[in-house]
Amino acid sequence: MSHNSFGHLFRVTTWGESHGPAIGCVVDGCPPRLALSEADIQPWLDRRRPGQSKFTTQRQEPDAVRILSGVFDGQTTGTPIALGIENVDQRSKDYGDIATRYRPGHADLTYDVKYGIRDYRGGGRSSARETAMRVAAGAVARIVLGARVRIRGALVQLGPHGITRERWDWDEVEANPFFCPDPDSVPLWEEYLTAVRKAGSSCGAVVEVVAEGVPPGLGAPIYGKLDADLASALMGINAVKGVEIGEGFAAATLTGEANADEMRMNPDGTVRFTSNHAGGILGGISTGQNVVARFALKPTSSILTPRRGVDRIGVDADILTKGRHDPCVGIRAVPVGEAMVACVLADHLLRHRAQNPDAPDSVRLPRN
Amino acid sequence: MSHNSFGHLFRVTTWGESHGPAIGCVVDGCPPRLALSEADIQPWLDRRRPGQSKFTTQRQEPDAVRILSGVFDGQTTGTPIALGIENVDQRSKDYGDIATRYRPGHADLTYDVKYGIRDYRGGGRSSARETAMRVAAGAVARIVLGARVRIRGALVQLGPHGITRERWDWDEVEANPFFCPDPDSVPLWEEYLTAVRKAGSSCGAVVEVVAEGVPPGLGAPIYGKLDADLASALMGINAVKGVEIGEGFAAATLTGEANADEMRMNPDGTVRFTSNHAGGILGGISTGQNVVARFALKPTSSILTPRRGVDRIGVDADILTKGRHDPCVGIRAVPVGEAMVACVLADHLLRHRAQNPDAPDSVRLPRN
Amino acid sequence: MSHNSFGHLFRVTTWGESHGPAIGCVVDGCPPRLALSEADIQPWLDRRRPGQSKFTTQRQEPDAVRILSGVFDGQTTGTPIALGIENVDQRSKDYGDIATRYRPGHADLTYDVKYGIRDYRGGGRSSARETAMRVAAGAVARIVLGARVRIRGALVQLGPHGITRERWDWDEVEANPFFCPDPDSVPLWEEYLTAVRKAGSSCGAVVEVVAEGVPPGLGAPIYGKLDADLASALMGINAVKGVEIGEGFAAATLTGEANADEMRMNPDGTVRFTSNHAGGILGGISTGQNVVARFALKPTSSILTPRRGVDRIGVDADILTKGRHDPCVGIRAVPVGEAMVACVLADHLLRHRAQNPDAPDSVRLPRN
Amino acid sequence: MSHNSFGHLFRVTTWGESHGPAIGCVVDGCPPRLALSEADIQPWLDRRRPGQSKFTTQRQEPDAVRILSGVFDGQTTGTPIALGIENVDQRSKDYGDIATRYRPGHADLTYDVKYGIRDYRGGGRSSARETAMRVAAGAVARIVLGARVRIRGALVQLGPHGITRERWDWDEVEANPFFCPDPDSVPLWEEYLTAVRKAGSSCGAVVEVVAEGVPPGLGAPIYGKLDADLASALMGINAVKGVEIGEGFAAATLTGEANADEMRMNPDGTVRFTSNHAGGILGGISTGQNVVARFALKPTSSILTPRRGVDRIGVDADILTKGRHDPCVGIRAVPVGEAMVACVLADHLLRHRAQNPDAPDSVRLPRN
Repeated sequence: MSHNSFGHLFRVTTWGESHGPAIGCVVDGCPPRLALSEADIQPWLDRRRPGQSKFTTQRQEPDAVRILSGVFDGQTTGTPIALGIENVDQRSKDYGDIATRYRPGHADLTYDVKYGIRDYRGGGRSSARETAMRVAAGAVARIVLGARVRIRGALVQLGPHGITRERWDWDEVEANPFFCPDPDSVPLWEEYLTAVRKAGSSCGAVVEVVAEGVPPGLGAPIYGKLDADLASALMGINAVKGVEIGEGFAAATLTGEANADEMRMNPDGTVRFTSNHAGGILGGISTGQNVVARFALKPTSSILTPRRGVDRIGVDADILTKGRHDPCVGIRAVPVGEAMVACVLADHLLRHRAQNPDAPDSVRLPRN
Repeated sequence: MSHNSFGHLFRVTTWGESHGPAIGCVVDGCPPRLALSEADIQPWLDRRRPGQSKFTTQRQEPDAVRILSGVFDGQTTGTPIALGIENVDQRSKDYGDIATRYRPGHADLTYDVKYGIRDYRGGGRSSARETAMRVAAGAVARIVLGARVRIRGALVQLGPHGITRERWDWDEVEANPFFCPDPDSVPLWEEYLTAVRKAGSSCGAVVEVVAEGVPPGLGAPIYGKLDADLASALMGINAVKGVEIGEGFAAATLTGEANADEMRMNPDGTVRFTSNHAGGILGGISTGQNVVARFALKPTSSILTPRRGVDRIGVDADILTKGRHDPCVGIRAVPVGEAMVACVLADHLLRHRAQNPDAPDSVRLPRN
Repeated sequence: MSHNSFGHLFRVTTWGESHGPAIGCVVDGCPPRLALSEADIQPWLDRRRPGQSKFTTQRQEPDAVRILSGVFDGQTTGTPIALGIENVDQRSKDYGDIATRYRPGHADLTYDVKYGIRDYRGGGRSSARETAMRVAAGAVARIVLGARVRIRGALVQLGPHGITRERWDWDEVEANPFFCPDPDSVPLWEEYLTAVRKAGSSCGAVVEVVAEGVPPGLGAPIYGKLDADLASALMGINAVKGVEIGEGFAAATLTGEANADEMRMNPDGTVRFTSNHAGGILGGISTGQNVVARFALKPTSSILTPRRGVDRIGVDADILTKGRHDPCVGIRAVPVGEAMVACVLADHLLRHRAQNPDAPDSVRLPRN
Repeated sequence: MSHNSFGHLFRVTTWGESHGPAIGCVVDGCPPRLALSEADIQPWLDRRRPGQSKFTTQRQEPDAVRILSGVFDGQTTGTPIALGIENVDQRSKDYGDIATRYRPGHADLTYDVKYGIRDYRGGGRSSARETAMRVAAGAVARIVLGARVRIRGALVQLGPHGITRERWDWDEVEANPFFCPDPDSVPLWEEYLTAVRKAGSSCGAVVEVVAEGVPPGLGAPIYGKLDADLASALMGINAVKGVEIGEGFAAATLTGEANADEMRMNPDGTVRFTSNHAGGILGGISTGQNVVARFALKPTSSILTPRRGVDRIGVDADILTKGRHDPCVGIRAVPVGEAMVACVLADHLLRHRAQNPDAPDSVRLPRN
């Protein structure tokens, strides 16, 4: 057990605080002889990197990752891969005000109640800065999964404004600062988030991650279910308050007839589904369809409007948060969500083949 | 790591299939010298027991639990508590039809693809029958948590019909066959579900679980967050497709100002919150407020209307499911959800005091 | 983490006390479609069963194992295998004297200090009776390992009397009540242990376990070493005080030249070693040679000569142990040691192939 | 599960290779508000540091440790503590010869068979250099244990030469380059090891570690035994081939009468033992006596006399090992053994108080 590790066979342990000298992670259990260099990781970090548009925090972090172990002659060796990123642009003085104050919606109070001490600078360990290491580990997980599996995320709702799913265009996702798949939503969102930002306010969002090419058989009964591990992985991202698989909460409103993903045989002996309400998972195990997960993020708690809070010595205090913040943390959560899905899938791939080395990698019947 | 264990320090391992001789679990890590007998567990099982109204499966299982180890002279000894329930009312012949057929929405296909074999009788390991052991383990978890912590669940949506929250009455929950807290919804639900059942159809539901009296400090950064573990626990219940904490998905639509749970000092030095959008968890750690979680269940996949499926040898087959089934699995999921929340909280209570034996059990400032 | 589970991917959880209604275990992670019935497990239990000669305890336990889950149509299903054995021949009244007394060398004191309660009947959880479930789980592990791997144990020292290794004969092991591989030692041991038994005394022993046919590559750096896991597995058997791999303590007295296991190529491209000082493990990873482990057991603490102890209320008390006991617990530890080695190897086999599915199963060079 | 993590609640994950840029570890689960700085760790590293006498490798590594996270204002925060040490004095060219050759007694062959790749420079991950991080983590563990617990190690046998235990003097241990507690053995060992070194040979050793002040109750049945975890911890140190607790293998030769650690009440209500054959552990749980463990190390495999080995392409090759090596790795294993004992005890301290927060910290009767 570890409070700061994720996964079992593909296992990621992260460390570091927002304003410490560095952040890092150890990826243990990665299979050997996979080509890996910093160039395989950096592009994913760059997608998450702050300061790239006016819609994210202006903290300027190059987030240059360095591989410190586990790679030799350009290949993984099977030993633990240590990754590190130096913190560059700390402005700890911005945080003097909150050293003794507990901001509403932040972990200030709970860390202090639990531990009796906290590194308040930039949120310390609770800062979303830690998610950089999730993205770095996710880049390694993608390599473990191989080219067959493609994991992509998009913002499907910004504040109250959802996309129109019929207009979904994956190419659009990388073409706007919101990871929005619906081109028509982009100007609306720009206008909306600009207003939010100028008001010193914030908003929430919903992210959807789709994993294509996932082999069937990943996941396990009863407490090793793929959907349960995805739920844990996504709920554990900062500010996330809800997770759905496939139809999610909407499934509650369907009839059994409408929710059934019917099956037919393809001429080549594989099974096709006529729908994917299940989000690619049945009984906790992947079906070979796309794995579809969504998660909702609350609005950024750091806002410029004063809110009522308390301070460490037990006095009421009105608190507003200076410093540099994302008006919507959901945007940069897109690459983080992708990374967590990648880590879960890589872990389950290893777990699956440990127990079932002869399992097929597609749903082809009859199996035997 | 285990596919069939849940929790770390309060750790539950379950075993058994729907139509095997018995089901059981091992609860490891329970503190010693807690009074425990079958009479502490049986009432919780009775709440979940099938066959108690026309709205649940007619399978008649007494679900009489037996303590096989870990208790001496009426007290826990600190050694593993084994619990067992004999299966009584199997009708395996009901399942002959599905021995070679994969029902839409069930784990038939995925188990067979993963393992190349499955116990098809009553769903085997994937049957909701396993949840009886979750409820049994949850009963032990409640004792670990003590009288201070009260965990209650309710059905807040049946199919498309949600409750009116203003009418919430906990006393009502035990007074109707739906665990419904809103008396005015009960007749409507009866009518609706009767129609669903008579049509051989099924519907989904949403369950809410509220834990009162949870001490602050439970949970841990970054991969030991209380909300992440709740998400895993609840998503792992059969048929669950979504999990929310506090505001959940609705948080995405709020502004930072509206979502902030503001704080004020009480005269006695404790902190009170003016709202609980967070569902009692900040930064993955409990605040001392009520922990509030919701989860959505898909409609029961076993329906009498034929659906298109395939069989084991790769032939299209129209499939309808005989046997005895709940028209809405969400109803009996209420005690299961409560039990999972209890297990998560008991585990985190032990984890918390291992690292933080001097942490306060209420939010009283200044801490030191 | 669990206090009562062993292994990671092949994971055994045991429960039960000496004088409770039953003992049992759950074997999780077993690969599917392995032929398994009670008949595969019972013979190993019979080897360990008490009451088979005058040199072991006279408690008569049939130790009839029952498979309660995880097997369907004679094959494992990949879901947890629950095994149970009823306790039959408890004589709890024999233990009334020790209800309030702490016997030297027993866990009476430590259980009571740790937990504040103990099931004193027959030693409760600390009884060697628990080892029956290790043997049962080991029988499943052998099936996971397959016919290629052969695990055999022998008693190589009884009290002060060691065997002459030149006379080692595996056939002899099953032909005498000591699992002694040296026929010339048997009469000497009979005479010695008869005298020990008649004197109401006890003696210790050393057991050696040899695993042949172990594929290379099992184990992992740094904290997943095969030898470290074997050490844990064997030291955890009741009464064990020392563990060795290969040369063990004698390695300290060798020179680097003498201790080197030199290598030569075979004509078929495999590597042979000219010796096996290492006991089949280098750098924590199996070499493909025989894995050789030894463990030492202290003399049975239950003796008829009174020893000075204390009682629960803090009064000095002279204590002798009635009841039925093995004069040398080392004898019946032979099948237990074999079982633990089998469990470790099965677990590492699964762990190895999760990360290294393409690794060779013999040392054949060049690898690529 | 992790191949490169040790412990459960006090959990250490190490990374790094002998000739990579750095080595490091993450210590997770450390309680908060413990005073910690580099100055608390460095002295322990200095004891292990190479190049301090002619009897250890001449590699010059300052081994300057840096705290990268988890400490704020001089105190632990409860979040993961990352420690790093830069590698300074690599001479990778020394290792060109072994890039394609498998040295007897080394992990060259097994790493390559398992992973199909290895970082051969200085042994890569299998280098004893990794043990620096064990010592660093052990320094943190000592702080968790507090001043009450004192953990000291000594070399009790060098090659064939054991100490005379009657002359044991802890002060002597720090006064000679062997960590030898017997002043009369020092000149003999100097002469012996000088001859070994000049001959280009090597020898083994036996280390004893004693932990004083260990509270009773640490450890747990059945697979969480303190002695089993110590065995794993010590057997996992490079070159270790045997582990003993208390009497160890000698216990096999004792009678039950002789081996019994008898007990008497002290006037103050505590229990005293008249001997400590058990090494401070009964039933896997600490008794409050000194915990005593010993481990044997094989002779250093790197010797200047050519030995028969094979190369990567399957050709016989005579191999001698250049580079800088310890003629006896046992010497520098003393601080490593102490550190591993400290880590095990710290982990079990946290585990114990999670389940048994009210357990006494001395054996005082009656308990209640």
